[in-house]
Amino acid sequence: MDVENYLKQDDRLILVTGACEQHGYLSLLTDIRIPMALADAASQQAGVLIAPPLNFGCSPYFLTYPGTISLRLSTLMDAVEDIVRSVYGQGFKRILVLNGHGGNSGLKIRLTELCAQLPGLQVQWYAWWMAHSVEAVAIRHAIKPDHANWLEAFPFTVVGELPQEDKLPPYVPSDVMDAAKTRSVYGDGSFGGQYRVPQEIMDEIFAACLADILHLLKFES
Amino acid sequence: MDVENYLKQDDRLILVTGACEQHGYLSLLTDIRIPMALADAASQQAGVLIAPPLNFGCSPYFLTYPGTISLRLSTLMDAVEDIVRSVYGQGFKRILVLNGHGGNSGLKIRLTELCAQLPGLQVQWYAWWMAHSVEAVAIRHAIKPDHANWLEAFPFTVVGELPQEDKLPPYVPSDVMDAAKTRSVYGDGSFGGQYRVPQEIMDEIFAACLADILHLLKFES
Amino acid sequence: MDVENYLKQDDRLILVTGACEQHGYLSLLTDIRIPMALADAASQQAGVLIAPPLNFGCSPYFLTYPGTISLRLSTLMDAVEDIVRSVYGQGFKRILVLNGHGGNSGLKIRLTELCAQLPGLQVQWYAWWMAHSVEAVAIRHAIKPDHANWLEAFPFTVVGELPQEDKLPPYVPSDVMDAAKTRSVYGDGSFGGQYRVPQEIMDEIFAACLADILHLLKFES
Amino acid sequence: MDVENYLKQDDRLILVTGACEQHGYLSLLTDIRIPMALADAASQQAGVLIAPPLNFGCSPYFLTYPGTISLRLSTLMDAVEDIVRSVYGQGFKRILVLNGHGGNSGLKIRLTELCAQLPGLQVQWYAWWMAHSVEAVAIRHAIKPDHANWLEAFPFTVVGELPQEDKLPPYVPSDVMDAAKTRSVYGDGSFGGQYRVPQEIMDEIFAACLADILHLLKFES
Amino acid sequence: MDVENYLKQDDRLILVTGACEQHGYLSLLTDIRIPMALADAASQQAGVLIAPPLNFGCSPYFLTYPGTISLRLSTLMDAVEDIVRSVYGQGFKRILVLNGHGGNSGLKIRLTELCAQLPGLQVQWYAWWMAHSVEAVAIRHAIKPDHANWLEAFPFTVVGELPQEDKLPPYVPSDVMDAAKTRSVYGDGSFGGQYRVPQEIMDEIFAACLADILHLLKFES
Amino acid sequence: MDVENYLKQDDRLILVTGACEQHGYLSLLTDIRIPMALADAASQQAGVLIAPPLNFGCSPYFLTYPGTISLRLSTLMDAVEDIVRSVYGQGFKRILVLNGHGGNSGLKIRLTELCAQLPGLQVQWYAWWMAHSVEAVAIRHAIKPDHANWLEAFPFTVVGELPQEDKLPPYVPSDVMDAAKTRSVYGDGSFGGQYRVPQEIMDEIFAACLADILHLLKFES
Repeated sequence: MDVENYLKQDDRLILVTGACEQHGYLSLLTDIRIPMALADAASQQAGVLIAPPLNFGCSPYFLTYPGTISLRLSTLMDAVEDIVRSVYGQGFKRILVLNGHGGNSGLKIRLTELCAQLPGLQVQWYAWWMAHSVEAVAIRHAIKPDHANWLEAFPFTVVGELPQEDKLPPYVPSDVMDAAKTRSVYGDGSFGGQYRVPQEIMDEIFAACLADILHLLKFES
Repeated sequence: MDVENYLKQDDRLILVTGACEQHGYLSLLTDIRIPMALADAASQQAGVLIAPPLNFGCSPYFLTYPGTISLRLSTLMDAVEDIVRSVYGQGFKRILVLNGHGGNSGLKIRLTELCAQLPGLQVQWYAWWMAHSVEAVAIRHAIKPDHANWLEAFPFTVVGELPQEDKLPPYVPSDVMDAAKTRSVYGDGSFGGQYRVPQEIMDEIFAACLADILHLLKFES
Repeated sequence: MDVENYLKQDDRLILVTGACEQHGYLSLLTDIRIPMALADAASQQAGVLIAPPLNFGCSPYFLTYPGTISLRLSTLMDAVEDIVRSVYGQGFKRILVLNGHGGNSGLKIRLTELCAQLPGLQVQWYAWWMAHSVEAVAIRHAIKPDHANWLEAFPFTVVGELPQEDKLPPYVPSDVMDAAKTRSVYGDGSFGGQYRVPQEIMDEIFAACLADILHLLKFES
Repeated sequence: MDVENYLKQDDRLILVTGACEQHGYLSLLTDIRIPMALADAASQQAGVLIAPPLNFGCSPYFLTYPGTISLRLSTLMDAVEDIVRSVYGQGFKRILVLNGHGGNSGLKIRLTELCAQLPGLQVQWYAWWMAHSVEAVAIRHAIKPDHANWLEAFPFTVVGELPQEDKLPPYVPSDVMDAAKTRSVYGDGSFGGQYRVPQEIMDEIFAACLADILHLLKFES
Repeated sequence: MDVENYLKQDDRLILVTGACEQHGYLSLLTDIRIPMALADAASQQAGVLIAPPLNFGCSPYFLTYPGTISLRLSTLMDAVEDIVRSVYGQGFKRILVLNGHGGNSGLKIRLTELCAQLPGLQVQWYAWWMAHSVEAVAIRHAIKPDHANWLEAFPFTVVGELPQEDKLPPYVPSDVMDAAKTRSVYGDGSFGGQYRVPQEIMDEIFAACLADILHLLKFES
Repeated sequence: MDVENYLKQDDRLILVTGACEQHGYLSLLTDIRIPMALADAASQQAGVLIAPPLNFGCSPYFLTYPGTISLRLSTLMDAVEDIVRSVYGQGFKRILVLNGHGGNSGLKIRLTELCAQLPGLQVQWYAWWMAHSVEAVAIRHAIKPDHANWLEAFPFTVVGELPQEDKLPPYVPSDVMDAAKTRSVYGDGSFGGQYRVPQEIMDEIFAACLADILHLLKFES
């Protein structure tokens, strides 16, 4: 009944999408935990409601790493469509999708199609690791962000013992590889570079993303 | 990498399905929280791995209650199929589905179809609120269990102020009603009866379910 | 052209769903014949039109019994949706689904979704063997109803020589079993109990169901 | 259990597909009744098993005629696929599809795809009204066969009072018309020509089809 | 921007469907090239816009001939639906589908369904090789038209050395054969008859089709 | 029959995907023409076969620009899957997808899933405008590449009069906008920057892409 009251004064919702997939020495749910932490922080400041996270995304290339669970892209798109239609029917018109996983980007196509079908629906999409603000932090500190390296090594995602040595980024022979090939290329699962950076840099990253999100939640057009 | 080690000595997995739907004065995630609590307790005793919960189920009848998010049954079946195929490919052969929501029971059909396609796959299905052991507790205390009444009012699901008075179960004109009709029938969302019972009874319920689950995790056939 | 005249004064339709599946010593079409017989009787009294039956349902667990034909649940839901949309477009607004088969219950989800999309559509769902009135007859005679036992042994469903001896209900290790396992559990296909009861009891069952159906055809809300 | 015995000595099955659609003064189930009558006659002579008919086909163009029920072609293909897979898994390898309805011809594509996936599966397709043998009868008697004219006016399909006068075949402006346009073009539903011919001619038609079917049931390749 | 101007004075579009499949000594794209050539000629005279061709159709029976690419019928129907919806939303209301391939005829069902959903949409369907006017040419010259024989041997489709000798049409045991069987029946891919006729006859065929198309483009109803 | 000979000595195929969508003053088929030109050039040097292009892609955001035709992403994925399965069954094992359109990138997920299902299949994906080599050319000349600006203005794509003045890149309020919003943001369709650069630079771009493609065609892993 709280949601009904909320809708009397706001029509915004944050939806977190991500993945359950290998992240080297980080949590299998890294791609959920990061956007969820950002959503929580943003919600505290902006008072915007957060939907329960969809804990699975598209990660077919990592299926040889046990613990990875991958939805077909068609399934993922259907699920997000069902979620959006459910809340749209209740009055949510402005939805910020906080996406934590690159394999999910096909969702933008389905969301665009939905915008054509559901009058008044506005959608913002934020893929935090691709933000200009995050790139700026990385450039400032001269470190290269990538999957399962320092970029995602937040205190709430690290679950294993991080190696001390940097990892040489492997040669990647193709953009489309099956899961067996992917594992032979990536080994421990990290895409290479530093495994960890000082916490101050992680705080900078987080703060930069949070600022972006708070801006997007204004839904200026 | 922990999952890889786990698979060397075990091939069991618990998958929690449920719903994000109105539960009167209880959490929108009641149907996830209860099976998840049971899964956690069972995992501590039996050491069986738990997959991240799928936070959404089939609740089209409650869509007029804001906060309810419903997947189409076809979407839900596809998502569970994708999850099962992902982990089956990694070596999980015995899966206990802890389902927290009645609208998801069509999943059993898809799971049966999967058993025919994936050699060696064994599936157990547990819908805790329909268990004989739960019925026995209810009969012993002469209380009638139902949606969003005392049956689901655990400490970790109550989020609102529970009414003191019992609710007279409403007349339900049809098994298939649209969401508007459903809301006019059910009002606050509870299906009626007592809103709360002493914690001892809730503990009995929980213990009964836990015992059932520990038995099912033996996958005796 | 008769249907066009019918629609000038009535907007009700009976749709029979069921299964083509093993029933031990009973017809493969038992789950169609019973609701169809009930529909015929109800139609004679209430003058409501009956659509041709959909002769197949969801029975993946019985596919090792030759003669069983199973639709995927997604196919079944699509077929019923197409049927409902076809007749709705012609003016049928009140539809009673007489379902003869437990594996089809996922249909209720799709029907609920359709009610949200097709204004004015009312659906009643009747699964005769689960009716309180049938339970009452069984309790009165202290006999336990189940799949392919006396409960379904009407004169128009019996096709084989019924055993004289009762069958001890087998131990069922799981709610979700593949078809091979199901056959090893159930053997001749009956779920156990008495194979036959006196015809008077069958008449009671039939009469109880018919009364229920005639009531539902009033579509009181 | 009879089917199991049958499979020990035969692996052929007849599957009847058709439609529930307007046929002017003939039964809505004309497209089922005719192939079913042929199947029955063939079965008596050749001893081949018949599956229950799928009572619905693709008739979107006739939906403005009340009583017509149309499946989407995708639904119909899925249903037939599910039927074929069900019986194939039990040992049926040679399937004769007796199709009674032109709108279903897309099924041949799906059946061909299935033949590539199910080793040893042989399918014959018979659309009786398009047979050379039927054409020969029509030419011999100088009468033009068409939908809902004499061609389908068997004793078991006529349900209304057939007009005495022939109908002038209407001008058909397009192969693809919506249902409203189709009705304005066809009026009473017949495509024109004679409504009835002497029973001897109908017997010739039936005998010609039966001979074809008995030949096809030999599955010579 | 040219299309926007076009739509100010016309709402017609030609859509070419066909196949990429073996045609004996003719191009794999024969079924695209012929309707595309007809579309170009018609467009020059009638000024109607042509959409880019959909280069693939349903040809599962020819998949053993390398170079054949077949879409599932469900995929093809979805693609054509997406195309029609795209252009309908922009103002195209009259669409002539120039189909070059027999395996695509299930498309007519989907197009009919679309006509019921998209108000004002008019569709014409032209399968050139089945036209009465083409049949008339063939009869006049006493030659039998068929797949990959003279009928399709236009200067812009012939890519191989055509045999001098006629081919005896093979015995075709079934309407539904898998691709291996199909190849064993048809050998070089032609369905038999003459491989080539004088260019004057081909010109007659082309002119007859063009006249038909120009008539259909008037969308008289 | 040429394809059969080809397969005796090679198992590579180039598949061109793209879009039919507005490109400002460039051809609606720009995203097909560019990769097709590259494919032709590569084929001449490396002798690799090219499949007919799939002329449509995912462009829902441009549907308000007449002439844009968009497939749903699910349709596009199904079509590419059907194409890959068709040719894989004939012996093509190494497929280079030359993609010309950003909205199609979800295809990589489906292709990865296919690699897991089709043993021995190798896929390379090349999105020319995102190549490092193209970026290097742009940086060298200090020009920013973008949709429908100079980057795509090849002699074979320019169909309108290109403006002399550069376009100021518009403010883009969201990554997910409906088609009406997209048009109001982008106006003439170009994403901004220079409309044209000297042909030498275009030649550099083309040469860089061609070199990349020739390398990828080696399928080194």
